[in-house]
Amino acid sequence: MADPRFHRRAGPFTLGELAARTKLFKLPEGAEGAVVTDVAPLETAGAGDLSFLDNRQYLKALAATAAGFCVVAPEFADRVPQGSLALVTPHPYLAYATIAGLIYPEAAAVAGVHPSAVVDASAVLGEGVQVAAGAVICARAEIGQGSVIGPSVTVGEGVIIGAGCRIDANVSLECCILGDRVHAQSGARIGTAGFGFAPHPERHVPVPQIGRVIIGNDCQIGANSCIARGSGHDTIVGDNVWIDNLVQIAHNVEIGSGSILVAQVGIAGSARLGRFVQAGGQSGIAGHIRLGDGVRIGAKSGVMNDQDAGATILGQPAVPVREFWRQLAALKRLSEKKGKGE
Amino acid sequence: MADPRFHRRAGPFTLGELAARTKLFKLPEGAEGAVVTDVAPLETAGAGDLSFLDNRQYLKALAATAAGFCVVAPEFADRVPQGSLALVTPHPYLAYATIAGLIYPEAAAVAGVHPSAVVDASAVLGEGVQVAAGAVICARAEIGQGSVIGPSVTVGEGVIIGAGCRIDANVSLECCILGDRVHAQSGARIGTAGFGFAPHPERHVPVPQIGRVIIGNDCQIGANSCIARGSGHDTIVGDNVWIDNLVQIAHNVEIGSGSILVAQVGIAGSARLGRFVQAGGQSGIAGHIRLGDGVRIGAKSGVMNDQDAGATILGQPAVPVREFWRQLAALKRLSEKKGKGE
Amino acid sequence: MADPRFHRRAGPFTLGELAARTKLFKLPEGAEGAVVTDVAPLETAGAGDLSFLDNRQYLKALAATAAGFCVVAPEFADRVPQGSLALVTPHPYLAYATIAGLIYPEAAAVAGVHPSAVVDASAVLGEGVQVAAGAVICARAEIGQGSVIGPSVTVGEGVIIGAGCRIDANVSLECCILGDRVHAQSGARIGTAGFGFAPHPERHVPVPQIGRVIIGNDCQIGANSCIARGSGHDTIVGDNVWIDNLVQIAHNVEIGSGSILVAQVGIAGSARLGRFVQAGGQSGIAGHIRLGDGVRIGAKSGVMNDQDAGATILGQPAVPVREFWRQLAALKRLSEKKGKGE
Repeated sequence: MADPRFHRRAGPFTLGELAARTKLFKLPEGAEGAVVTDVAPLETAGAGDLSFLDNRQYLKALAATAAGFCVVAPEFADRVPQGSLALVTPHPYLAYATIAGLIYPEAAAVAGVHPSAVVDASAVLGEGVQVAAGAVICARAEIGQGSVIGPSVTVGEGVIIGAGCRIDANVSLECCILGDRVHAQSGARIGTAGFGFAPHPERHVPVPQIGRVIIGNDCQIGANSCIARGSGHDTIVGDNVWIDNLVQIAHNVEIGSGSILVAQVGIAGSARLGRFVQAGGQSGIAGHIRLGDGVRIGAKSGVMNDQDAGATILGQPAVPVREFWRQLAALKRLSEKKGKGE
Repeated sequence: MADPRFHRRAGPFTLGELAARTKLFKLPEGAEGAVVTDVAPLETAGAGDLSFLDNRQYLKALAATAAGFCVVAPEFADRVPQGSLALVTPHPYLAYATIAGLIYPEAAAVAGVHPSAVVDASAVLGEGVQVAAGAVICARAEIGQGSVIGPSVTVGEGVIIGAGCRIDANVSLECCILGDRVHAQSGARIGTAGFGFAPHPERHVPVPQIGRVIIGNDCQIGANSCIARGSGHDTIVGDNVWIDNLVQIAHNVEIGSGSILVAQVGIAGSARLGRFVQAGGQSGIAGHIRLGDGVRIGAKSGVMNDQDAGATILGQPAVPVREFWRQLAALKRLSEKKGKGE
Repeated sequence: MADPRFHRRAGPFTLGELAARTKLFKLPEGAEGAVVTDVAPLETAGAGDLSFLDNRQYLKALAATAAGFCVVAPEFADRVPQGSLALVTPHPYLAYATIAGLIYPEAAAVAGVHPSAVVDASAVLGEGVQVAAGAVICARAEIGQGSVIGPSVTVGEGVIIGAGCRIDANVSLECCILGDRVHAQSGARIGTAGFGFAPHPERHVPVPQIGRVIIGNDCQIGANSCIARGSGHDTIVGDNVWIDNLVQIAHNVEIGSGSILVAQVGIAGSARLGRFVQAGGQSGIAGHIRLGDGVRIGAKSGVMNDQDAGATILGQPAVPVREFWRQLAALKRLSEKKGKGE
């Protein structure tokens, strides 16, 4: 069970309800009334708990699980041990996510402004907005219905936050417009001035960064990640983009909807990513290049050139993933040969 | 036009004024009185707007621009389309930066301490200092004339901030001395204890970090970047150094004037960089090494050895840039040959 | 001398006291009463100062030092110049750390809650706890004896902080339990939701992150580093773990006691590190892999596979360090040969 100090549980739910809500698995016969009280990992789940398998690395844990219910893909259905009810679906992780979201729903906003928060008289707060202690809401900011502004957050002048957003502790926002249901995790910095200056031996001359950051709906921005505002154009993050922690997005970058950026990714200025691009941890994308839809970038890669839609690339500089492994194999053979010869 | 929610425009200016202020281009005949109302990117600029070309990748945009005025290098003068006035200069980006800075000047400090800020009685604030809501100024701190301290900033005990500095939201400063016109972007951490300890199986023993961070004039420190204070020596950042977001500078590092560190660079302890060193995004510099003046480090490189002034290096470990490409070409040929043979 | 603006000195101490407290070196004959007033680097130390040599790169500085006392390893004892008293020990850095810690002890907590701090009525503060200006302590949080909560820190609901901890400025904590003597540096983010979602073309479905972060005793978490809470399991950091700045630790990661993570390291979800693992700067560790005790990872490496205890690895993908250098040498030879042939 999740620690109740931190996580509040809803439910319980019958399997019938869960099947109806997720629409992702067929109810085993006679199981409609079975009661699911909680979700838990395979290793710790008990009789009333629902667990899932999404990575074959954990088949051993599946075999040993005491979970009452297991969401699994069809190919693993017969690996669910006796005593556990297999819930079979082509999308086990999605089913688990949906069910866990019912059992552990996000806390709703508690409408009101903490007395220690500082809200400028010209700011506009929608219905049900929660502003926590120590938050600072500057002039002309607008915050949409039901959004939660965490402790010591700074919402800069004129910033627009959509409805149902969560802006976690110590975030700062400036020169940006956020869609609905955006979740900015602690310490994220959105809308800071981009790294623009004309080099000069005595004093580099700053280029005024007069664009904005525009973020779509349903995005997540990770802890301590940074998104610089455009220098003239805007920096644009589409809908449904998930950005992990400590990611850097430079000015004028455009990121297509559905893209996924893993931790510590860096995207240089004016790069344009298509839809559903996936960038692995610590990878980097050079400035001014374009990546087509669905490009997948391996962890730690350095992407220096335009990439066609659907490309899967790896390495520094990044090349098609097969080429990367072929080059590595060639190098290995070469070094072994040389090693023997000497 | 830049969004007036976020950016306040000055002017308009006549081309004569702009030519006189920048001293970077010769006025086309009869153009002295032409009025420039705004700056904008090539793609969005209109009749009264000034734009620029600094990257040949955007020649197409130049050809199609409706900008009234275009700052360009001599070799592109004849690429400026009819209807747009070419302002020709060897330094188009510098000219643009200067003009944009006139049209979008930085907001001046609004003198005063917000009532929610906490300023220790022993702190010394210069004339015209602005302290925003929620800022905390600790004992004996000194803040120079006209500096702006943003919301929820922490200025630690004894910290000295020069004149005309801007310390953005949620920054924290400790054990550091900043020159004039330093801009620390949101979430920057300056002067934290370095990563110094004597390894020990039961409890690593911290080495007291009894140095400082000394930052020169006209520096920019990016959002969420970290500069650790010295362990005994100081950590020193020269004048006119620009540091992008999420950069790590370890204890005792010295960075020469005019250097440029792109996002996510990491510099290990006691490394010494000369003047005008340029480090590309996500590059790393090993501890205790020395880089001469003007060394240029490619993105994602790992610099493990001393480098002579003027070296241009790339790779991990970093080698002269030509050698990097030669090695890569050799590896490519090898893997293709092997590929065929198999 | 360390700048008294920032660092308060205790002492002086006689060499006899220091020898007794550190138990790491034998007193030179007749030196018991000699007085040590300060510690300082070799280059700046004077007659009453104690310095140390731990890196043979600084032998020149040793030869030229005016330090009254030098802590050195046996092999360098005869390199200590005349006029400086050699204190010989197999553990010079440890001895220096201990002595410097006596001369520059950490400031003790000043018990009390600043009037501008917001402490929920249900929070429990131990004896002698210090809560600085602008800090926000949420419901049911518990803070152990003598801990110091810095300015504008956010301590989330239910968070437990042990005794003797220091939580520096602008840190935020949620869903986490910290041991004793944990030092979280400025801007660290502990316990944020991990990067867990089921990909979906319209809206990626968040997987509720219902685990915690559990941190042992005597840990240091660097500035702006991020530790995500578990998704179901907990994220676990053992005792005596030192984490540098801008490090990313994903959900469900386990880090064994004594491990050392240098700046900008990234550890992907569910990786398990043994005890005393060392990860060099900017290295990355893939998800779901296991590293045995004492694994050492070179800077900038990318670890993609399980590693046996004691392995020393380097490269991307990381291989045994010898293999890395052998491959590099082979590539160098190849490229030179090809270069000549063309």
